[in-house]
Amino acid sequence: MPFTDRITLYTAHFSPYAQRVRIALEEVHADYVIHEIDPHHQPDWYRGVSPLGKVPAITFGGPDVPPDEPSPESVKLFESLPLLEFFVDVFPEANLLPTDPILRAKARAFIAIYESYVNAHYKDVLLFHKPVDGLLQGLEKLQAALPPTGFAIEQWSTADIAVIPFLSRMLLYLDTGIGNYDEEGEKKLKDAFAGERFARLKQYVQEARERPSFKVSFVSDEYQVAIGRKVPALQRRPA
Amino acid sequence: MPFTDRITLYTAHFSPYAQRVRIALEEVHADYVIHEIDPHHQPDWYRGVSPLGKVPAITFGGPDVPPDEPSPESVKLFESLPLLEFFVDVFPEANLLPTDPILRAKARAFIAIYESYVNAHYKDVLLFHKPVDGLLQGLEKLQAALPPTGFAIEQWSTADIAVIPFLSRMLLYLDTGIGNYDEEGEKKLKDAFAGERFARLKQYVQEARERPSFKVSFVSDEYQVAIGRKVPALQRRPA
Repeated sequence: MPFTDRITLYTAHFSPYAQRVRIALEEVHADYVIHEIDPHHQPDWYRGVSPLGKVPAITFGGPDVPPDEPSPESVKLFESLPLLEFFVDVFPEANLLPTDPILRAKARAFIAIYESYVNAHYKDVLLFHKPVDGLLQGLEKLQAALPPTGFAIEQWSTADIAVIPFLSRMLLYLDTGIGNYDEEGEKKLKDAFAGERFARLKQYVQEARERPSFKVSFVSDEYQVAIGRKVPALQRRPA
Repeated sequence: MPFTDRITLYTAHFSPYAQRVRIALEEVHADYVIHEIDPHHQPDWYRGVSPLGKVPAITFGGPDVPPDEPSPESVKLFESLPLLEFFVDVFPEANLLPTDPILRAKARAFIAIYESYVNAHYKDVLLFHKPVDGLLQGLEKLQAALPPTGFAIEQWSTADIAVIPFLSRMLLYLDTGIGNYDEEGEKKLKDAFAGERFARLKQYVQEARERPSFKVSFVSDEYQVAIGRKVPALQRRPA
């Protein structure tokens, strides 16, 4: 590997945003240290890593210090999608994006479709009891952007790393009743995924879950469900 | 220029998303053709360019055809931020992003801050009469991410190209009463921009507006105001 600068990843295991970065670090075979941050009880020193007080963030380079004493000499970087692009740039041999500009544009457009049409709705549906129709339409658009087989641009790329932490949780949470859904909407979602409507999308999620980088960062369904059951925002509340 | 593939940009002059791509094409000195699409009356053939039916989109390469007869042989690319990255990849000598991965990550994080904290609120404020507090907090975060002088990463980059079409319209529309604001919120926004609170951000917008690439794609304040006054969603409606 051309880069030997030390990397510390500040993360929260339940966060799909943070999982994006963990998967990328695994895929590039980076040597890195993980430090878990409780987003609701952030230590004061963490503002020296993430001025926005969010996970994921990384420190890059600088002297060998404990994660909870970050050095002013390391570079602090944050926001999950920019971090994926950072690893593309720093570890080109890992091929997180191909070199062909057209394939790179297609991978990034896939992420943009996810962000604009799926993720924007998912939060409202999962946390705030909102109608599911926009989410279902967004999932149709995302599925339509998949090739007949393989990953988003056929070969594995940042496009898959960006969406799989979310889609895997979406299916698992739906199966296990985690989330503050609108009741009618929950049934619509379950019916949509039980049938053939999202067969290609489900196959895609299943194949992505087989990546060792996914497994190590997700641990197991049981583990994610146990975490999910402890997050107050993810519990059913009166309408 | 290493690439001589023909580029057709499908755009709408009022759209800040489309202006991002136009600015980038100007900055890289690309040879390109512009074709205006009315988003509300899209011709049927346009689905062959953008399956999502949105501007901006480009066709890249393929035979010399009129814009309204796109060839199946050209590559179709869409989503404004992926298109900016595409021009970074295809026109490296234009230096839309520096080669240093850390500066690239900072430019991309600046865009992510804009998207998550400003843009997500701006649409609600401008079009849907929503409270302005989240937008004001987002603008504070964005301003705090600016260096003391210069552009987002000091040198001009995609970070500026991504945000300036929006910030320039935000200030102009506020000055000219374009937008379906909540009345109390409109006053709060005007007061915030009239004073020193956003002095750095205003200076940044003013400097970015001096770029020739901005001027040619924005035309003039008068032109943008005239367009803004014709867009139904941008007019004051009863609460």
